[in-house]
Amino acid sequence: MPEISRKGANLPTSPIRKLAHQATLAKERGIDIYHLNIGQPDLPSPNSALEAIKTYKEKVIAYGPSEGTKSFREKLTNYYKRNNIHIQPTDILVTTGASEAIIMALDCITNEGDELIIPEPFYANYETFAAACGVKVVGIPASFESQFSLPYINTIEAAINSRTRALFICNPNNPSGYVYSKEELLALAKLAIKHDIFFIVDEVYREFLYDGATHTSVLELEGVSEHAILIDSMSKRYSMCGARIGCLITKNKEVIAAALKFAQSRLCPPTIALHACEAAIDEPAAYLENAIAAYKLRRETAIDCLRKIPNVELAVPKGAFYCLVRLPVSDSDHFAKWMLESFEDNKETLMVAPANGFFSGDKTGKDMIRIAFVLETKKLVRAIELLKLALDQYPNKLA
Amino acid sequence: MPEISRKGANLPTSPIRKLAHQATLAKERGIDIYHLNIGQPDLPSPNSALEAIKTYKEKVIAYGPSEGTKSFREKLTNYYKRNNIHIQPTDILVTTGASEAIIMALDCITNEGDELIIPEPFYANYETFAAACGVKVVGIPASFESQFSLPYINTIEAAINSRTRALFICNPNNPSGYVYSKEELLALAKLAIKHDIFFIVDEVYREFLYDGATHTSVLELEGVSEHAILIDSMSKRYSMCGARIGCLITKNKEVIAAALKFAQSRLCPPTIALHACEAAIDEPAAYLENAIAAYKLRRETAIDCLRKIPNVELAVPKGAFYCLVRLPVSDSDHFAKWMLESFEDNKETLMVAPANGFFSGDKTGKDMIRIAFVLETKKLVRAIELLKLALDQYPNKLA
Repeated sequence: MPEISRKGANLPTSPIRKLAHQATLAKERGIDIYHLNIGQPDLPSPNSALEAIKTYKEKVIAYGPSEGTKSFREKLTNYYKRNNIHIQPTDILVTTGASEAIIMALDCITNEGDELIIPEPFYANYETFAAACGVKVVGIPASFESQFSLPYINTIEAAINSRTRALFICNPNNPSGYVYSKEELLALAKLAIKHDIFFIVDEVYREFLYDGATHTSVLELEGVSEHAILIDSMSKRYSMCGARIGCLITKNKEVIAAALKFAQSRLCPPTIALHACEAAIDEPAAYLENAIAAYKLRRETAIDCLRKIPNVELAVPKGAFYCLVRLPVSDSDHFAKWMLESFEDNKETLMVAPANGFFSGDKTGKDMIRIAFVLETKKLVRAIELLKLALDQYPNKLA
Repeated sequence: MPEISRKGANLPTSPIRKLAHQATLAKERGIDIYHLNIGQPDLPSPNSALEAIKTYKEKVIAYGPSEGTKSFREKLTNYYKRNNIHIQPTDILVTTGASEAIIMALDCITNEGDELIIPEPFYANYETFAAACGVKVVGIPASFESQFSLPYINTIEAAINSRTRALFICNPNNPSGYVYSKEELLALAKLAIKHDIFFIVDEVYREFLYDGATHTSVLELEGVSEHAILIDSMSKRYSMCGARIGCLITKNKEVIAAALKFAQSRLCPPTIALHACEAAIDEPAAYLENAIAAYKLRRETAIDCLRKIPNVELAVPKGAFYCLVRLPVSDSDHFAKWMLESFEDNKETLMVAPANGFFSGDKTGKDMIRIAFVLETKKLVRAIELLKLALDQYPNKLA
């Protein structure tokens, strides 16, 4: 039998998806699962997008331009302008989700054996995308106690070597919910310029901010435009995760030209979804305001409920819709699996993402889970009640 | 300014898309372009698919399973059964077009520096996908005179070395239209087994066969199931190129498990398009029969018209909807560009794919173009008339 590739053999399984099989078995036993494991909002997609699908008029579902339609890129440009981000349609490459935007960015800027510096915890799939490109992720630990703010800049700089190709952050952060300050961004930009490396920022949760937090885009910073690559997506903003429409934005002409060549090879982003996303951009502002208000309430609910569980701590999120929670367990992988296999209350259980997968180390994060507050408050209250009940019954609970 | 990657800097531009800018300029000058450059069928997508879009009921366009929905994979399994290909739904990974299926296959089976053996000419994007994976394509020349049948098996075997990871063909072939015989497939399978390497076959044009040609799938061959990887797509079969739904199929459990991990990292194939494709599979057989009949007629029309142009030769296609045409020019890149920039007849011109991009050598194929017979016959007749007129006027015409 022929051998598979080293990266194929060694890839970690996504912490978000690794318990999918156990979840299927639980459902087959008649158990209802509250999904706090994945950032799949339950909010309806914008009416304008749903309507655009229903009234789709083309008779041939044809290839579109590899870089995305001009009209979509123009609308996006206006959206960014409203967000104080000044770009041209030609700075945008429309991609199949932020996932493809990241893969293309790495294809454009890294060679096999290069390194990316990412504060950890980080979105686990970054490591898979890097592995696919033969690139190593160097995680710089952020601390739970400071809500996962940027690690000391000197620690980050000390990790830069001749193979380092980029600093990479997610802002607002998945999984921690931390929102980087303008000062933190400037410090990273300064490092990128000094060492002549790229600065990639995944801003897919741009609008989801709490407690007066403000967001600064990497493309608002001055002097770093040749180094900056912005990753974005329609998935979370418009609750259209299944559309798979994202984008890569940069003012660096060499990067966008190379990215376009990769984009041409895969032909185009999905046509019908792009059509629906174009309509979504025209949705009245109230849609997003309501979505943000809903997440605010959910976040407060989640925080209140979690704080009532003994021996549970949380890193209070200022943005996105995730929260890292420290539990009195030594192996959250085992605990999460146990909830699906051996726990139920009134035929209900809970699915969470074990946090170890969001750290580069084998053992870090084993006492944490990530929850996504993407359920309506009543369900969220019940979901966190299930977490409390599960902890009460978990045979391996500490203390 | 930070340096971009070697592969980003060195990627060739797709021969299908390289003249996109010139085409835009021609359109801005009021010129109508007949597109024979890209395999974008003009046939309507199936009614069932268009209807499924119009009646899409979900309120949340949500992530689907990373491997594709179970119902879609079950329907696909039945489709393959009708085509004498016996697989299980778990052997299928649904991808974002055949493009992603190929990228994932290469991610699963190659390490940086490995090699793929592909008879040439070949679909140009294979080279980009390989480059993205750090893999080298070794092209084995097939001959125009034999309509690009499989090169001598001894020549292919002589190219196999310790870095070779796979034999890779497209059957029916894009760009040549050649349909490999069962004997040719068996010879390749035997080599794959003997050297313990993979055998990848892109079968997206499976149904499009002419002059009594028959198609044998790699998954119909015995004894090679651990080595075989089938690439497929809904794009051509259902005239749904913009849907971006394809699949990777293999009975090799290690490959499918690794591919699933890559698939999980990019979350899922596009949800709405998958819903539409699922409906397309249920379309009555008449749809595909009519499509095949239309291509038969177009192919005959194209062959007849091309044969009437002096000093033009063609490799008669037995499948797919492409044809390689040898012209009395020494640089078909220049000729194709010239047609967009300096030629028009009654405000109309023609766009073709220069064939050099389908060969690995710098100079091979410079006297050829690829045309796609994806226009209705009347338009096709006019398009080939434009080719004749353009050749008459082309200042650099040979002989």
